[in-house]
Amino acid sequence: MAETAEARLAALGVVLPEPPAPAASYIPTLAVGTLVFVSGQVSILGEEKYVGKLGREHGVEDGQKAARISAINILAQLKVALGDLEKVKRIVKLTGFVNCTPDFTEAHRVINGCSDFLIEVLGERGKHTRSAVGVATLPLGAAVEVEAIVEVG
Amino acid sequence: MAETAEARLAALGVVLPEPPAPAASYIPTLAVGTLVFVSGQVSILGEEKYVGKLGREHGVEDGQKAARISAINILAQLKVALGDLEKVKRIVKLTGFVNCTPDFTEAHRVINGCSDFLIEVLGERGKHTRSAVGVATLPLGAAVEVEAIVEVG
Amino acid sequence: MAETAEARLAALGVVLPEPPAPAASYIPTLAVGTLVFVSGQVSILGEEKYVGKLGREHGVEDGQKAARISAINILAQLKVALGDLEKVKRIVKLTGFVNCTPDFTEAHRVINGCSDFLIEVLGERGKHTRSAVGVATLPLGAAVEVEAIVEVG
Repeated sequence: MAETAEARLAALGVVLPEPPAPAASYIPTLAVGTLVFVSGQVSILGEEKYVGKLGREHGVEDGQKAARISAINILAQLKVALGDLEKVKRIVKLTGFVNCTPDFTEAHRVINGCSDFLIEVLGERGKHTRSAVGVATLPLGAAVEVEAIVEVG
Repeated sequence: MAETAEARLAALGVVLPEPPAPAASYIPTLAVGTLVFVSGQVSILGEEKYVGKLGREHGVEDGQKAARISAINILAQLKVALGDLEKVKRIVKLTGFVNCTPDFTEAHRVINGCSDFLIEVLGERGKHTRSAVGVATLPLGAAVEVEAIVEVG
Repeated sequence: MAETAEARLAALGVVLPEPPAPAASYIPTLAVGTLVFVSGQVSILGEEKYVGKLGREHGVEDGQKAARISAINILAQLKVALGDLEKVKRIVKLTGFVNCTPDFTEAHRVINGCSDFLIEVLGERGKHTRSAVGVATLPLGAAVEVEAIVEVG
């Protein structure tokens, strides 16, 4: 993929926001060696909010949109931390938490909304390892929360 | 332990399968420096499937068998990624997610089914740090999902 | 912060305990390169125990006290592993799991009880990335479990 991540974002009509401030006592990103850890990013971005549970308030498609917001927030945090998304060498690992009912079995399809967007924007550099799980609740009632480990260089 | 991991597996009568393809938009393993990240491996392996909840469909012993399948899937992924399990220097960290009812308090004993098997096969190299938690649901309704960080070299 | 972590702990009246032995088949800490992984530490410390669910047995303030116990256990494990808390260069990442009801939306405020204590003791070195999630259950019925990745050097 010759295009830059910024060019891909523009083509997709996505403007990275000022990234959300942490909701609590932590920092959004931290670099150690060539790894950058990104704190869990919830599916809330200004007016665009996905709160509530998969399997109750939301179906899989809504959940994928929620997970896409987590992806946008991850990229927004990386942009602030690195200055330039071209410094992202690889998305190494995502952990995706889905706020859902005890009978919901599609957490992996929901988190695809995050994974697919990162691959769309970053190409090969966006392909990552991952876990997806369904949890009892998330901070602020968010539908989705995704954290990331990123290789830079 | 002079024996190789492969010899231990053979002695235990375990044949590593073709590892399961990811159920969604991610890759099974990724190396960064001397660390290999292994995506969450669920308790499903061909015909052998543990789906459903601990504390409802399954008791602790069944859960341990489920966690052992996650361990076999982790080793199968590592074998494909590394070519040779002797390249595993250390299992560094496991995160074990147990699909369970809200009153189940034995997630740690369930995940022992994974931990004990890895130690049985890898000896000292298999001893790891770990978290075990009980979650609302897992992808495909799996009873157990375990992810791993592995040191190679 | 000129003061050592030990001096801060003393000023706070906190004596680090013999760290709890793992409740299952794992080890408490493992170093790989300059990173130390600390296994999930639950909110149980001798007689001081927080078991039960946030949103049912416990409110946010109790939860914060529970999370503070997880922080003390993390520091106790690091002290044993490193010999001296001054070797902690940075708390890199916490993952905080809160045992709670499906309607509880304050997992982030609960985990602040751990985050704030680490910052209180370690100053700038204590500032970390983080995810906080609400889970169905935790081992032994603990109210809180927190795992850590720490940079040393």
